[in-house]
Amino acid sequence: MPQSDTTNRQILLASRPVGAPTAANFNLVETAIPAVGTGQMLLRNRWMSLDPYMRGRMSDAKSYADPVPVGGVMTCATVSEVLESKLDGYAAGDLVMSFASGWQDYTLSDGAMVFRLDNNMKEPSQALGVLGMPGFTGYMGLTDIGQPKAGETVVVAAATGPVGTVVGQVAKLMGCRVVGVAGGADKCRYAVEELGFDACIDHKADDLNDKLIAACPKGIDVYFENVGGKVFDAVMPLLNPHARIPLCGLIAQYNATELPAGPDRLPQLMRLMLSQRIRMQGFIIFDNYGHCFPDFLKTMTPWVESGKVRVKEDRVEGLENAPEAFIGLLEGKNFGKLVVKIAD
Amino acid sequence: MPQSDTTNRQILLASRPVGAPTAANFNLVETAIPAVGTGQMLLRNRWMSLDPYMRGRMSDAKSYADPVPVGGVMTCATVSEVLESKLDGYAAGDLVMSFASGWQDYTLSDGAMVFRLDNNMKEPSQALGVLGMPGFTGYMGLTDIGQPKAGETVVVAAATGPVGTVVGQVAKLMGCRVVGVAGGADKCRYAVEELGFDACIDHKADDLNDKLIAACPKGIDVYFENVGGKVFDAVMPLLNPHARIPLCGLIAQYNATELPAGPDRLPQLMRLMLSQRIRMQGFIIFDNYGHCFPDFLKTMTPWVESGKVRVKEDRVEGLENAPEAFIGLLEGKNFGKLVVKIAD
Repeated sequence: MPQSDTTNRQILLASRPVGAPTAANFNLVETAIPAVGTGQMLLRNRWMSLDPYMRGRMSDAKSYADPVPVGGVMTCATVSEVLESKLDGYAAGDLVMSFASGWQDYTLSDGAMVFRLDNNMKEPSQALGVLGMPGFTGYMGLTDIGQPKAGETVVVAAATGPVGTVVGQVAKLMGCRVVGVAGGADKCRYAVEELGFDACIDHKADDLNDKLIAACPKGIDVYFENVGGKVFDAVMPLLNPHARIPLCGLIAQYNATELPAGPDRLPQLMRLMLSQRIRMQGFIIFDNYGHCFPDFLKTMTPWVESGKVRVKEDRVEGLENAPEAFIGLLEGKNFGKLVVKIAD
Repeated sequence: MPQSDTTNRQILLASRPVGAPTAANFNLVETAIPAVGTGQMLLRNRWMSLDPYMRGRMSDAKSYADPVPVGGVMTCATVSEVLESKLDGYAAGDLVMSFASGWQDYTLSDGAMVFRLDNNMKEPSQALGVLGMPGFTGYMGLTDIGQPKAGETVVVAAATGPVGTVVGQVAKLMGCRVVGVAGGADKCRYAVEELGFDACIDHKADDLNDKLIAACPKGIDVYFENVGGKVFDAVMPLLNPHARIPLCGLIAQYNATELPAGPDRLPQLMRLMLSQRIRMQGFIIFDNYGHCFPDFLKTMTPWVESGKVRVKEDRVEGLENAPEAFIGLLEGKNFGKLVVKIAD
């Protein structure tokens, strides 16, 4: 079902999931391609990004961003081509990345949350990954909150995802010992052999705690938290004095429908943070660090081009396959940055 | 039972408490006054400090400092007079403050953790409070981790204690709205009428949550955490985006013998820190900020002398009364910085 020149396929939030999302929570519809008014431009979407944060948008629990309304188009970032422009500064043919796009073929834009890309960019989908929100998240959280020093031990979960690969590879460039956690032997092998991590532990094995202890003989100085759950439980006892915890995601919790059974470990965590003098900071990348994006690109782009930072994408073909791919993302089925190719 | 010139009264840790300490956990003995060797000095202790952190030293749970051994002298800071010195730089008659002292009449010192005081200091006991560890804790936690901006709302518990009074009064000097939490109407009245807090809520009343909501109409930007427990529970839902939580103590937990019943709210706290982009940092004042102590004294001393920062002490007479006073401290019975006068 390829992109059409005459209709706009859209994937709507059909209903709010209870627990893990299912196909029934999404609804693909065909609508008219919107007309372009003054101060607007029409984007033809070529690549769309699927990211764990979208699970939050499907829920109406209080969060930092408004939820997608039931019946509304699922939000996402896209790499798009300007098809028609009545907006100053943009012309037909321009390549852009929009953070205010949607799971759809065409997006009407007023230019807000749109960044211009190099029209000759070799791999435009990287603007959704290593050179976009996830890579930026890994880089800023590691460097600004984590502040790793050479010789320290950095642990990152979801190690082969688009955040984890950047965290680990940049930490290696900074002279750290890097230990990843990932789901499955293939991902772990990739993290060590291709990305250069010192170790990577399979959280699906039943000895996560022992393996992590063995991989971190000097304890943990920076734990980059994007997962939560049992990985965090294994990390806690190993945190060194003055450890830092950048906190950008909790994918292990996103489908939870209630709090876990007791005892209540909230006081335990606070006691640990006090006695070990730990700093934990939650951050939402563009909210905290938007002004740093140009500098980030100046640093990361040459690293990617030279191969100092390697990139792994998990490409899915066809807008209509986005819901299934997203459901798999929350289960850890993807291997690398998950992007959906909507059109050439 | 006054201080003697011939014997050294010492209060020992007789046994480790299970839950709240009792008188049976302490043992007062009389020993010989130690002889002074080369590189040592003998301190005659005049004032001793009682602080919540000492509950941790009575336990052998893993923490940032070694526990007091059973049968060992309870540790504390004292304001002392040098009685005899074979240590360069100190002479008989010098007034000092020692962080490595004990619940006793005389302390043998090698000069480690000893700070010289002005021999003419009007209120030497303030070196244990507003101009010592607690005041320094409040000042650095608030200014360096809390980083309050004028117009923001700062909440501090144990509002009339030596940390809370400094946090609140300095936050007022910085132009913040300051809301205290304290135990009892007298303490709350003092915080508002004498210290100038905008509001102070009695946590012994049964409407802590509602009162805190009413006192913080713009939410909470800085919560200075020195208590934990139900105050933190009431604070959590009110934390604004980008709130900061300096964490220096958890007195409400110190006597706990097991974790509270479930559900497990650890994931809830992490979710809150992520969605509200909260920074929490545990700190141990001299470990994190020891190098800042001289600058702190330069700032705080004139504030105290001019009355910009007001001081409240709760003075107990007699070394032998220290255990009972300490047990009361953990129950919130003191009103102001708790110090024990050992001798003139």
